[in-house]
Amino acid sequence: MTDRPLVGIDDIDRAAERIAGVAVRTPLVTCAVPQRRPGTLLIKPESLQPIGAFKLRGAYNKIASLDPEQRGRGVVASSSGNHAQAVAYVACTLGIKATLVIPEGAAEIKIAATRAYGAEVVLVPPDQRDTKPLELAAEHGYTLVPPYDDPAVIAGTGTIGAEIAADLPDVDLVLVPVSGGGLISGIATAIKTRCPRARVIGVEPELAADAAESFRRGQRVEWSPELTFRTAADGLRVAVVGELPWLHIQRYVDDIVTVTEEQIRDAVRLLARSARLVAEPSGAVATAAHLAHPELSAGGTTAAVLSGGNVDPAQYIEILRG
Amino acid sequence: MTDRPLVGIDDIDRAAERIAGVAVRTPLVTCAVPQRRPGTLLIKPESLQPIGAFKLRGAYNKIASLDPEQRGRGVVASSSGNHAQAVAYVACTLGIKATLVIPEGAAEIKIAATRAYGAEVVLVPPDQRDTKPLELAAEHGYTLVPPYDDPAVIAGTGTIGAEIAADLPDVDLVLVPVSGGGLISGIATAIKTRCPRARVIGVEPELAADAAESFRRGQRVEWSPELTFRTAADGLRVAVVGELPWLHIQRYVDDIVTVTEEQIRDAVRLLARSARLVAEPSGAVATAAHLAHPELSAGGTTAAVLSGGNVDPAQYIEILRG
Repeated sequence: MTDRPLVGIDDIDRAAERIAGVAVRTPLVTCAVPQRRPGTLLIKPESLQPIGAFKLRGAYNKIASLDPEQRGRGVVASSSGNHAQAVAYVACTLGIKATLVIPEGAAEIKIAATRAYGAEVVLVPPDQRDTKPLELAAEHGYTLVPPYDDPAVIAGTGTIGAEIAADLPDVDLVLVPVSGGGLISGIATAIKTRCPRARVIGVEPELAADAAESFRRGQRVEWSPELTFRTAADGLRVAVVGELPWLHIQRYVDDIVTVTEEQIRDAVRLLARSARLVAEPSGAVATAAHLAHPELSAGGTTAAVLSGGNVDPAQYIEILRG
Repeated sequence: MTDRPLVGIDDIDRAAERIAGVAVRTPLVTCAVPQRRPGTLLIKPESLQPIGAFKLRGAYNKIASLDPEQRGRGVVASSSGNHAQAVAYVACTLGIKATLVIPEGAAEIKIAATRAYGAEVVLVPPDQRDTKPLELAAEHGYTLVPPYDDPAVIAGTGTIGAEIAADLPDVDLVLVPVSGGGLISGIATAIKTRCPRARVIGVEPELAADAAESFRRGQRVEWSPELTFRTAADGLRVAVVGELPWLHIQRYVDDIVTVTEEQIRDAVRLLARSARLVAEPSGAVATAAHLAHPELSAGGTTAAVLSGGNVDPAQYIEILRG
């Protein structure tokens, strides 16, 4: 599988044309950091996308690339989180049938949000979350929309990097949350092409640090759910980075660092107070890394990607109370 | 004074060139409204400006228009809120001396924020808040930067309307918070020029509804601080709309409506959950009007201006708890 071609900047530029008018062209938002440290922190708030997360970009680029016959048959995806809402939203926008495989026990609010976009929800035992979509695809001819291990999805997320490069060509450091690796793959491809001097660093919770360990070892390492499910950052619990993302990470990413749960909570509070943005814990890890690891930015200009803002209201209040 | 010329679209276009790269080009953010009402609500989040409020646009346009001699002498402004931070921030950016007259008793956090930008703070008894800046201007040759009753300030706020018109040419309704009237003056000028079919409606708290009463009566009416200070929307307690704003309101604004304190709180919660944006109560009144007065939008596309996100953390948590 290691000979799969990497996504290129042309793929990202085509994705940018495709998603224009559907995805929000997010600005860079200044975030004043306490203690007047040298350097500047700017937030790329993907939380402002219609479904509240960056996933819209990849899902739209993938689904809008399908031919009329594929569109007519519909799409299927497996997710209990933002990817489910992204696929359901995009399918609704394009008038395509969507089936979402969601593991039993997922938050009722997320299931309801997915159904609200008109998608069919198939609840399965958690151990069928990866096999059931393949069965449904084979049975009905649905096209599978993977959450990260897919070139069209990666090219879609790459538009975030292209926008950062256009708005902030002198950026020194781009910090990106890492889960399955699709987000950082696209962003790193765009940044290393357009701003080759800039560094791109991934961020994971210390409690779900499979990608950081993989990066250190030079090979993909899997962490069990017993480990990854300890973090409150529920969007970053993927056991191992995807194959195609791993190729991009090896090629383009400078490092992967970790942050503690308390640092994530501090970042959620800072984003509310200093950038006026609502962040989910997973979305705040890049900002947390800027606070926790000041040596990374070395006083330069840092762009931290805020990947999503879909946080349970009670959990959000609990975090804000500190 | 009624022969003062109105601000025109050319003034707004020049302001847009001036503020480019300083003010954030804010996107329109989708806000899903409960109960699936017909129509679409989009938020214009001026809370994402560097100081957390739209005031940056007007202050920058005013101060950047000064000639070198005026710049050398410095600027003075009177405010206990977002205008103070805007003037201090802009002066800091341009390397100009700023003096801020702040009434005694203002929130310590706002005084500190103003000083953090290097501005000199002069604390005065509340009844000297309007006279002291004039004294300082006469004594030191400072240029006064008014919060709303000024053509350059109004042209700066007009850039918000020009951006809405560019991004959403088919907008049906634009809802705008009203305090001194500078914000709605600029926005209404731009919208009525570029999207003449769209309606522009101002929004005030029911407890500080001097502009709504003025609009009904066809003449400026002043409300006492005993009345206006009842609302939690501390940015909307101005006693009476400014003279120059009033001329724009009479010419361009279709109506001014009011919302209750509970409707404002509901809107702050909705903005956090459905648009992932932190709003101060004053900033949320336009969204509150969309929720409270569904007949205004008639199922069309509404843009609600979120004017600022500088809310005390404890107050914000209290509102989110509902």
